[in-house]
Amino acid sequence: MKRMRNEEALVAQIERAFRSASVKSIVLPMGDDAALWVPTKGKETILTCDWFLEGTHFLRGKHPADAVGWKSLARAVSDVAAMGGKQRCFLLSLALPPSLTGRWLDEFLRGLRSASKALRCYLAGGDTTRRDEVLISITVIGEVRPGSAILRSGALPGDVLFVSGTLGEADLGLRELLRRRRTIKPPSTALRKHLYPRPRLELGEWLGKNCLATAMMDISDGLSTDLPRLCAASRVGAKIEANALPLTPLTEIGDARTLALHGGDDYELLFTVTPKKAKQLPGSFQGVRLTRIGEMTRDKKIQVAIDGGKAVPLVSRGWDPFRES
Amino acid sequence: MKRMRNEEALVAQIERAFRSASVKSIVLPMGDDAALWVPTKGKETILTCDWFLEGTHFLRGKHPADAVGWKSLARAVSDVAAMGGKQRCFLLSLALPPSLTGRWLDEFLRGLRSASKALRCYLAGGDTTRRDEVLISITVIGEVRPGSAILRSGALPGDVLFVSGTLGEADLGLRELLRRRRTIKPPSTALRKHLYPRPRLELGEWLGKNCLATAMMDISDGLSTDLPRLCAASRVGAKIEANALPLTPLTEIGDARTLALHGGDDYELLFTVTPKKAKQLPGSFQGVRLTRIGEMTRDKKIQVAIDGGKAVPLVSRGWDPFRES
Repeated sequence: MKRMRNEEALVAQIERAFRSASVKSIVLPMGDDAALWVPTKGKETILTCDWFLEGTHFLRGKHPADAVGWKSLARAVSDVAAMGGKQRCFLLSLALPPSLTGRWLDEFLRGLRSASKALRCYLAGGDTTRRDEVLISITVIGEVRPGSAILRSGALPGDVLFVSGTLGEADLGLRELLRRRRTIKPPSTALRKHLYPRPRLELGEWLGKNCLATAMMDISDGLSTDLPRLCAASRVGAKIEANALPLTPLTEIGDARTLALHGGDDYELLFTVTPKKAKQLPGSFQGVRLTRIGEMTRDKKIQVAIDGGKAVPLVSRGWDPFRES
Repeated sequence: MKRMRNEEALVAQIERAFRSASVKSIVLPMGDDAALWVPTKGKETILTCDWFLEGTHFLRGKHPADAVGWKSLARAVSDVAAMGGKQRCFLLSLALPPSLTGRWLDEFLRGLRSASKALRCYLAGGDTTRRDEVLISITVIGEVRPGSAILRSGALPGDVLFVSGTLGEADLGLRELLRRRRTIKPPSTALRKHLYPRPRLELGEWLGKNCLATAMMDISDGLSTDLPRLCAASRVGAKIEANALPLTPLTEIGDARTLALHGGDDYELLFTVTPKKAKQLPGSFQGVRLTRIGEMTRDKKIQVAIDGGKAVPLVSRGWDPFRES
């Protein structure tokens, strides 16, 4: 039986789910024409939005509803970390079939609410409508001290290239998810990284506050796709060492290397540091490994050296919805 | 032939279209992980987002691409007017088929840019992806003096109910659009109101600044659907006079009355004023008619009196995507 609801009932259900996950700076939450939020005095506002669409970014038959809720927010918040800012609140645009307004929506909201609390980013408002497939667009509002946002465009030749955490595990988890007929509980480490990513919020904010990075972005589409974006914005090239990549121990080394170069959905931070500051950078921050994987070059090529051999061009094989294929 | 583009090319195309339609408070436009915007000192931020989906909110075969661009922004900005605030900038989440990245996208961006300039609301950033159908979600950022936003919840029994402009013409225009095999140029008055709505930005801001309205919202789903929302938020009822409704002269009176009560997409402002201030309110503001259509009641019923006769319950027949039908 289809459970039909009117829009007011749906908004009320969302409000109920978030009742205890609110914050004072949101003056007026959902239910009016718009939300009201008090920006912190003297800060600039970070604005970012992110699609999360059934069939494109997740599969309803494969991804648990609570993971859809968690991940839709986590990946959007990651863009604030990538600017060196502090996340504040978010808007939820949700379209879904009336048949999913029961259990699926409850689970989705549970995951979204968990992410909201864990990532300290609070629901301010949104819009809902009916649609055959689940469509989600999340807008995240963050803040940063004027002039201290870390852009993609600040890297200089000679800057050292770093990456946080381990690369490729989320893609390994996706592979596992697609292979399985049912999600086994509890999920493996790799699957957990795919379903419930933890954006590097504290690291991003710390790098921003202390002016440690010259350029930064998050890796959402894979290193081989995202690094060229950072290089293009900074008008530099890069040379990375395949041997230096922080590989996952969960698969054999050749596979792990391919995953590290091309796997998407990791939401690790990719950032550049001046050679002088690079020497002072700790090997980890709050338990998250910081790995030096190469350096930026005047020559605009993007190259990868394998086993100390000759550097070869790094070919993009990550996620780009508009790439000719 | 399908024209395939990669995501960078698409973002560059959007940036080019908006190059001359920018504003100083947007520090960092599209192209980085997020946008940076400088809020005005001492103001609260208004946050609102609005879906505009092919098949749900517009038909690709019927609605010209430039109208899709114009309307997607205009309807979202209307929510800022409805709070008595001032629109500032917006984020564009756009999903579309690669086959539409040519002429259709150019036309869409032309319409969106016209709206951006005319409505003084500037592109700050966004997200793009590929999809079989055109999906749009627009987030608008506005500002208001702390404490002076006009909510839906402020109406008291005895307050006078007003509406701006004329009701029902956009729905009449939609009817015309669906009947026609091709859009005739130039479109009729009614069709123009459907395709290129003009949200009441100056009026909303004026009512807000001068604390003239006790409650306000915009009429997007039709009076019979939106008035109950205002009443519910304010915990009051309303009694309207069918004879007082600002009808369109473009159709016969019975039809015009039905359109005024139930027609959607007008983006006129519905607001309440204390009896004392109601006497001082001008009959129009900057050429936009302000019509007294009824009053708020302690009794929570929503009623309509026709030709001075007995009041009957007003049944919602406007747009609600989740209504059981």
